[in-house]
Amino acid sequence: MNQYSVQIVEGGVTAAAGYLAAGVSAGIKYVGKKDVALLFSQTPATAAGMYTTNRVQAAPLQLTRRHIAAGHPVQAIVVNSGNANACTGPQGENDALAMAGRVAEKLGLKPENVLVASTGVIGQPMPMGKVLAGIDAAAAALSREGGIDAAEAIMTTDTELKQLALAVSTSAGRFVIGGMAKGSGMIHPNMATMLCFLTTDAAVPAEFLQQCLRQAVEATFNQISVDGDTSTNDMVVLLANGAAGVRIEPDSPQAAAFQDALEQICTVLAQKIARDGEGATHLIQARVQGAATLQDARRAARAIVSSNLFKAAVFGRDANWGRIICALGYSGAAFDPQRVDIYLGEVQVAANGCALAFDEERAAGVLAREQVDVIVDLKQGEYSALAWGCDLTYEYVKINGSYRT
Amino acid sequence: MNQYSVQIVEGGVTAAAGYLAAGVSAGIKYVGKKDVALLFSQTPATAAGMYTTNRVQAAPLQLTRRHIAAGHPVQAIVVNSGNANACTGPQGENDALAMAGRVAEKLGLKPENVLVASTGVIGQPMPMGKVLAGIDAAAAALSREGGIDAAEAIMTTDTELKQLALAVSTSAGRFVIGGMAKGSGMIHPNMATMLCFLTTDAAVPAEFLQQCLRQAVEATFNQISVDGDTSTNDMVVLLANGAAGVRIEPDSPQAAAFQDALEQICTVLAQKIARDGEGATHLIQARVQGAATLQDARRAARAIVSSNLFKAAVFGRDANWGRIICALGYSGAAFDPQRVDIYLGEVQVAANGCALAFDEERAAGVLAREQVDVIVDLKQGEYSALAWGCDLTYEYVKINGSYRT
Repeated sequence: MNQYSVQIVEGGVTAAAGYLAAGVSAGIKYVGKKDVALLFSQTPATAAGMYTTNRVQAAPLQLTRRHIAAGHPVQAIVVNSGNANACTGPQGENDALAMAGRVAEKLGLKPENVLVASTGVIGQPMPMGKVLAGIDAAAAALSREGGIDAAEAIMTTDTELKQLALAVSTSAGRFVIGGMAKGSGMIHPNMATMLCFLTTDAAVPAEFLQQCLRQAVEATFNQISVDGDTSTNDMVVLLANGAAGVRIEPDSPQAAAFQDALEQICTVLAQKIARDGEGATHLIQARVQGAATLQDARRAARAIVSSNLFKAAVFGRDANWGRIICALGYSGAAFDPQRVDIYLGEVQVAANGCALAFDEERAAGVLAREQVDVIVDLKQGEYSALAWGCDLTYEYVKINGSYRT
Repeated sequence: MNQYSVQIVEGGVTAAAGYLAAGVSAGIKYVGKKDVALLFSQTPATAAGMYTTNRVQAAPLQLTRRHIAAGHPVQAIVVNSGNANACTGPQGENDALAMAGRVAEKLGLKPENVLVASTGVIGQPMPMGKVLAGIDAAAAALSREGGIDAAEAIMTTDTELKQLALAVSTSAGRFVIGGMAKGSGMIHPNMATMLCFLTTDAAVPAEFLQQCLRQAVEATFNQISVDGDTSTNDMVVLLANGAAGVRIEPDSPQAAAFQDALEQICTVLAQKIARDGEGATHLIQARVQGAATLQDARRAARAIVSSNLFKAAVFGRDANWGRIICALGYSGAAFDPQRVDIYLGEVQVAANGCALAFDEERAAGVLAREQVDVIVDLKQGEYSALAWGCDLTYEYVKINGSYRT
């Protein structure tokens, strides 16, 4: 029997042993706003990454993927907000390299031990003087307490800081996983960049670490939608430095505990991103059960939280289940429309694909909650999935209609 | 050399010879609003249809597809607005059949010679007493002049009536193609149903008619987006009754003239639907050229007009080309980001995937126009495509947030 316990602990990326961080203001964004984050692992860590599927990919993302794919141990991640370094041509590639180089120089590493991420304006040259000075300041400020500054420095239009850490106690010992994330605020003149950086003091072989991260991301960050746009800069990176002395091997009891805690962190951070979608007033959680395949369940759940029509209905507190079944219909999931049951919270609104005479007031009460739950039973099989989104509001249009000008 | 001329003529579905129509108020929608349309061909017509890809399909749509697929000659189409007859179970199927039966009875046809379409509320039983009385009234009111009433009766939240007819003169004689359309207003409690009915007095073999319609629809109605939601009731139907005495055979000079005029009508009606998107203040036309394949060109163009971020930027008159290249990146089209040129109207804003120092005021001037043109050159090949959409406005959120309650 695999017994382990998972507990929330303070902090984010520096909650696990052996990590230092800093966040400083380098003047890239606005005066006084933190915009350069630096994360440092005191010992070399294995690394895993998941990246945007957008064909247009920013220079720092390409560098990070290259470094992780080559299997270089990682000791630092540098992130700037305010400029995405995307659509910037060969100069952008040089700038991303220069950022890795400066971090390496300051911390006594090689450039290939450094990862780089950027979020902000597309198509504008990086203000490298400010960026490099910011890196110097961040390197000097690294500390165990710096995780919160780093989490602040990666924010753009986020209205709240997003971090979480969990301590996992197993028969083989205790380890910590922590993370910080930003999103999905759009940024001058673009976009919904989503960034997440995770650290653990468990020791995890790189290949297995990648497998764990993929599984967690597919169930969490790949199941959120704010507006259907995929950015050029999205990435999730996980470092494992082994400082806790616990080794996670595939198919071990520890692996199950590790995966469980990792998915819990990713779930909470994904929910925070969806809830903080621009202009949002509600978090929408869709649960699709009874699907024939996991892919069907995930597609169906994503379609619900991605439907502009349903998102607007939630904003208007309109128990508009027709928009849910319509979204299911074009989701690509296989199902029989005449078997679908739909619930808003605890109120069943449709049975076997047909309307029920439900209590409109009770349904409106569900839609007034800060978190709106939609449950769909396809009655086709055993699979279920969750997805998260937010309502579509006047404020979303306002933010994105007038951001750049 | 294939010479022909195409000319706009008055009217819509009754502009071609041998068609009568009517639109009446049956009390399904609101008091005094027309909500039952009837179209009648005095002689049997061949028919072609294109339908929604939504897995949830309304009963009338299923009946119409069945009748056309079986190759029955068609003499009448009955359409009601105010109730979609979708998610209504076996009763809905009976109701659609009863509508075809009543039309057949009134006009001396067989039910299989009648097509049925509905648009409106999802998941509510059809008020069949009103519907059948409406059919009786419409059958009694059929006339050559009734096309405009029919076009009015299929409207839901449309703010303007949509019809057009073209006369085509060829060496083999003259024929007319006309049509009416509705969309993309959402309807209590759902959705963006798009309906279009086209008539011609040319004689066209059914199989070739279907091929012509498919080609026209793929280039026009399948290239518009108001909010990305596909309805349970969407259909485009084309009747050809041969009353003009001109026969259209595949690969004939007349076929080219017919296809040309058909695509012109579909283009205009598709633009009208996009322009009349809920809350819209601009028509957005995206032209993608230089694509490696036609599918790439179409996907890329669709992604631009479907991006919430870019749609909101147009509303805000923000020359936000980063959102265009971002949409191209996730469109699925194959291209090299470092070769893309982007224009807003006549103002080039990006070259080879990088920013240009363009005149913001001139670009804002382009975005102030009623029709906003986006031109993208992928520089990969010879294919190009158009797509149409509208801006995303406060009004869209308002309409869809508060429609049902």
